Amino acid sequence: MTERPPHGSARPGGRTARTRAAVLAAAYEELDRDSIAALTLDRLARRSGVHVSTIRRRWRTVEGVVVDLLAERSSVLPTPDTGDFRRDLTQLTEAIADFNNTLRNRNVIQGLLAAAAHDARVEEIVRSAFMRRTEEVTWIVRLAIERGEIPGDTDAWEVIASLAAPLYYRVLILRGVIDERLVHTTVEATYQAARSGVFVRKG
Amino acid sequence: MTERPPHGSARPGGRTARTRAAVLAAAYEELDRDSIAALTLDRLARRSGVHVSTIRRRWRTVEGVVVDLLAERSSVLPTPDTGDFRRDLTQLTEAIADFNNTLRNRNVIQGLLAAAAHDARVEEIVRSAFMRRTEEVTWIVRLAIERGEIPGDTDAWEVIASLAAPLYYRVLILRGVIDERLVHTTVEATYQAARSGVFVRKG
Repeated sequence: MTERPPHGSARPGGRTARTRAAVLAAAYEELDRDSIAALTLDRLARRSGVHVSTIRRRWRTVEGVVVDLLAERSSVLPTPDTGDFRRDLTQLTEAIADFNNTLRNRNVIQGLLAAAAHDARVEEIVRSAFMRRTEEVTWIVRLAIERGEIPGDTDAWEVIASLAAPLYYRVLILRGVIDERLVHTTVEATYQAARSGVFVRKG
Repeated sequence: MTERPPHGSARPGGRTARTRAAVLAAAYEELDRDSIAALTLDRLARRSGVHVSTIRRRWRTVEGVVVDLLAERSSVLPTPDTGDFRRDLTQLTEAIADFNNTLRNRNVIQGLLAAAAHDARVEEIVRSAFMRRTEEVTWIVRLAIERGEIPGDTDAWEVIASLAAPLYYRVLILRGVIDERLVHTTVEATYQAARSGVFVRKG
């Protein structure tokens, strides 16, 4: 459904993994110098030393490479587990802030969003990347429910989306950085709302 | 600073106003059929009957026209004044939902955001359009402060941004529609957070 080409099935450290590492590293370096609009498969081939036909076969397009890069970079983000819901929310928010306050990560996300406006496949890829990442960190919410910090029928997905929304609104729409104040208000607003049952689903 | 060409200074109903109305109407019709990427000044000229050089002189680019269209369309959005903070927030949220659930309005905003990734001028225009609109509706918050519904040193701008963020996150990033459930959770989360002093600025 996401139309993303499958990752190589070779064992870790094998040739497929090395090729992927080289191409993603090249994309990461290029995006530190320029926006995604300036990126081409030829430039990626030149910088990575991987043949352009190999890159095209595996990722098809520049957007394909950049989506894979985004997946790799954001999988580095840890899911906090401090034993305290508010502290988990704070650590997660700070991690999202650090990630998005880096110019090249912002280039990646802004570039993909721009491409999504013109390409339904990229749109679906971006959408599902955000959905998947949101789903991954919902266990912060599930743990808070288990500990009795928030109501049992809280919709975990909605809580995480409520946390992410003000951060991406700031970065992608207001085009600003995520500062300490926004981290604070975002965590507190989500925490208070979750505690008071705003995200409870009836029935 | 916004680099937007000045609107004609002729009196309302004059030739300048008629030209603007015709070109914006043409843009509005075109965007119902196609994305902003397909729009050209020539197509606008053809549909509006206004000469392309007139359009170019006044708006410079397609993005200039579309930004003006966005300003015109969103100024139609009323700022509620029901005498009740929660009801004001609900009406504002429903208005933003109705606006963004229209395909051509979504085309306008998604298109501008895409253009912003490649063009710093468009980026600044989009940014300031959102900032201005946010500022306009802050008086909902000021009235709530006057009525004693929320703390006196609440940051009105932050409250409105907190309301807008989940809606635009849904439309522009998750690429979904704003449904009743999202209206409900967004209003309640912002309301609870504002009441409990999350957006209070000390000092």
